[in-house]
Amino acid sequence: ILTKHIAVLPGDGIGPEVCNEAVKVLKAISERFGHQFEFNTKLMGACAIDATGDPLPEDTLDACFDADAVLMGAIGDPKYDNNPGAKVRPEQGLLRLRKSLGLFANIRPVTAYDALLEHSPLKRDRVEGADMLIFRELTGGIYFGEKGRTEDSAYDHCTYSREEIERVAHLAFQAASARTGKLTLVDKANVLETSRLWREVVQEVAKGYEQVKVDYLFVDNAAMQLILNPKQFDVMLTENMFGDILSDEASVLAGSLGLLPSASVGERTALFEPIHGSYPQAKGKGIANPIASILSAAMLLEHFGLQQEASVVKDAVQNAIDHQILTPELNKESSYTTEQVGSYIAYCV
Amino acid sequence: ILTKHIAVLPGDGIGPEVCNEAVKVLKAISERFGHQFEFNTKLMGACAIDATGDPLPEDTLDACFDADAVLMGAIGDPKYDNNPGAKVRPEQGLLRLRKSLGLFANIRPVTAYDALLEHSPLKRDRVEGADMLIFRELTGGIYFGEKGRTEDSAYDHCTYSREEIERVAHLAFQAASARTGKLTLVDKANVLETSRLWREVVQEVAKGYEQVKVDYLFVDNAAMQLILNPKQFDVMLTENMFGDILSDEASVLAGSLGLLPSASVGERTALFEPIHGSYPQAKGKGIANPIASILSAAMLLEHFGLQQEASVVKDAVQNAIDHQILTPELNKESSYTTEQVGSYIAYCV
Ligand SMILES: CC(C)[C@H](C(=O)O)[C@@H](O)C(=O)O
Ligand SMILES: CC(C)[C@H](C(=O)O)[C@@H](O)C(=O)O
Repeated sequence: ILTKHIAVLPGDGIGPEVCNEAVKVLKAISERFGHQFEFNTKLMGACAIDATGDPLPEDTLDACFDADAVLMGAIGDPKYDNNPGAKVRPEQGLLRLRKSLGLFANIRPVTAYDALLEHSPLKRDRVEGADMLIFRELTGGIYFGEKGRTEDSAYDHCTYSREEIERVAHLAFQAASARTGKLTLVDKANVLETSRLWREVVQEVAKGYEQVKVDYLFVDNAAMQLILNPKQFDVMLTENMFGDILSDEASVLAGSLGLLPSASVGERTALFEPIHGSYPQAKGKGIANPIASILSAAMLLEHFGLQQEASVVKDAVQNAIDHQILTPELNKESSYTTEQVGSYIAYCV
Repeated sequence: ILTKHIAVLPGDGIGPEVCNEAVKVLKAISERFGHQFEFNTKLMGACAIDATGDPLPEDTLDACFDADAVLMGAIGDPKYDNNPGAKVRPEQGLLRLRKSLGLFANIRPVTAYDALLEHSPLKRDRVEGADMLIFRELTGGIYFGEKGRTEDSAYDHCTYSREEIERVAHLAFQAASARTGKLTLVDKANVLETSRLWREVVQEVAKGYEQVKVDYLFVDNAAMQLILNPKQFDVMLTENMFGDILSDEASVLAGSLGLLPSASVGERTALFEPIHGSYPQAKGKGIANPIASILSAAMLLEHFGLQQEASVVKDAVQNAIDHQILTPELNKESSYTTEQVGSYIAYCV
C-alpha cells in the first residue's frame, strides 16, 4: 500500500471545478489500486490575495514543501489584469512557487486526438498524428533576472548558467531516448549570447545520448514550423520565455486547450496543472472541460512511478472522447457538464 | 518628373533572382509614369563576406546612406548556420544595417489572398479575410542590449527607453487611424518591466488617437490567438524579439511566405525586403516566388508618396494571382518561372 501526500491548489475561476474532477479520479484510482492519497487543499492566486493579501501564503508554500506532489487548478482574475501597476498579482504567486520549489522544467505533451481534429484550426492533414513533448526551462532566463527602471527606461536581464541548461537538457534527452529519439533545441543563437550558450551546452549533453538525433531551430522559424508541419517535432527543448510562447502556440493545434496537461518538475517535488487559464467567464457554469486537469493527475501518477494507474486514467479519457462524453466546446449537440465528464472518467478507471 | 536613388542589395541564395524581378517592375513603373529611378547595386550578406570579409562593407553602407530607399533581396548561407562560434555572420550585417540606418520600425502586412487559401495550413473559415499590419520595434530590446559571458554563464540585457517606444507607437497609431482603427499591443506585462513600460507609454500615446481602440494581449496568448482567430487583428504593435516570433508565425497563415513584403522605416531612409529567407536550396532553379519582393517594391513606392503607382503594382500582382501566373509552390500543375512571373507583372503595370 502506497501512501502519498498531495497538496491541492484549486485557485481561481474554473480552477476549483476542474481540480475537483481530477481529485475525484485520483480517489477512484486509489480505491481501485489500494493506494492511500492524502489531499491537503490550500489557497493560491487571486482567492489567496482576497483572503490574505498574498497570492502565495506561507501556509500554502509549507503544504507544497511537505507534499509528494502538487495538483493545481488555475489562477488569475480579471481585476488584476490590464493593471501593470498593481502591487500584488496572482502571477507573482505562481512565479514564486516555481522558484521556491525549484520547478526548473515544465513539460507539456501536445497530442492531436483523432476524434477531435475537426476542432483544430489546422487542416486535418497538417495536424493528424502530431504528438510532441515540449520541455520549457522554468526558473531562469528573463523571467527571474534583475529588472527595474532608470530615469527614462526599463530593463530586464536574461541570464543562464551552464548548470541551469544542463539539468533541463538531461530531462529532455532522457525523454527523447524513451520516444522516437529526436530532440529539437529552439533558440535564437544568431542574436543572443544566452542562446549560444544553450547550443554549446546542449551539444555537450548530447554526447551522452548517442541514440538521440539533435536538431537546432531559430525561434522565429520554430513559430512557423509548428503551424506548417507540427508532425516534424518529437521532443522540443527551449528556454523560459520562448517556451512560454511556443508551448501556448502548440497547444491550440490539438483542437482544444481543455485537453492539455502539464508537469513542472524540480529538485524536491513536482506540480501538475492544466495549461489553460482560469476562464472567469465560465466559472460556476459547469461548462469547463476537466480533461486537462484529469490528464495532469495522470502525469502526477506517472511521477509517483504508477505507470499502470496513469495508463488507466488515459484510457478512461480516451473512452470519454470516443463516446463523446464531452463538455460543450467539443460536443455542441449533446454535451455533458464538467461534473458529468469527471464522474464518467472516474467510473471508467 | 521624380528622381529617386535606390540602393539594391540582392544578397544571397534566391535574393538576386527575386530582387531582379522587383527592379524590373520598378523600371516598368518609372517608364509608365515618367519617373527616374537610379539603381545602385551593392554586396551584402554571405556574398559580401566571401568577397570582402565583411557582411556589410563600408561601400554598401555608404550607398544606403546616400539612397532615398533600399531594396533588399535576402541574406544567409548554410555555411554560416549552426555555427554559433563563427566570428563573422551574414546576420550581423543586417543588424548593423538596421542600427546604422536607424530603421526602428519593421512593418509587415499579412493578407490572406482568397485565391490562395487552399495553401494555408489553416481551415478556410479561420483565415478567410484576415488582413493585419504588424509593427515590430527593430533597433532596441534584447537584440541590441549588452551581451556577454561570465565564467559559467551568459547574459543578454533587454532595455527600452520611452522614446524608443513612442516613435514606433506613433507610426502604428497613425496606421491604425487610417485603417479600421484597432491596435493591439502585445507584451508580457505580467512578467517583464520593459513590457510594463511599453503599456504605460502606449497608454499615453493612445490619448492622441482617440479614434483608435486599443487592446492589450500577453505574448503567449497572442501566439494562440493568431492561429485561433487571426481575423480579430488589425494593427499589432510589439517589441523586437516578440515581433520577430509573432510576425513569422503570422506569415504562414496566408498560405505562402513568398507573398509577403516588409518595410523597415526610420529616421533617414527606409528598407524594403520580402520576409522570406535566402532559400539556398532553390537558388538558380527559377522556382523562387518574386511576388514578396515585388510587393516590397510597392511599399517602396508608397514610401515615396507614389500611391497610385503602388496600387498599379498591387493590382498587377492580384492579376497574376487571379490568372494563376504563379511559381510552383502555388501552382502545381502549370507553373511559371521566377522570371516569367516577374515579366508578367511588369507587363501588367
Ligand atoms: C501567468 C504567467 C506568469 C505564466 C508564465 O508566463 O509562465 C503563464 O503564462 C504560464 O505559461 O504558466
Ligand atoms: C536574421 C535575423 C537576425 C533576423 C531577426 O531576427 O531580426 C530575421 O529573423 C528577421 O526577422 O529579419
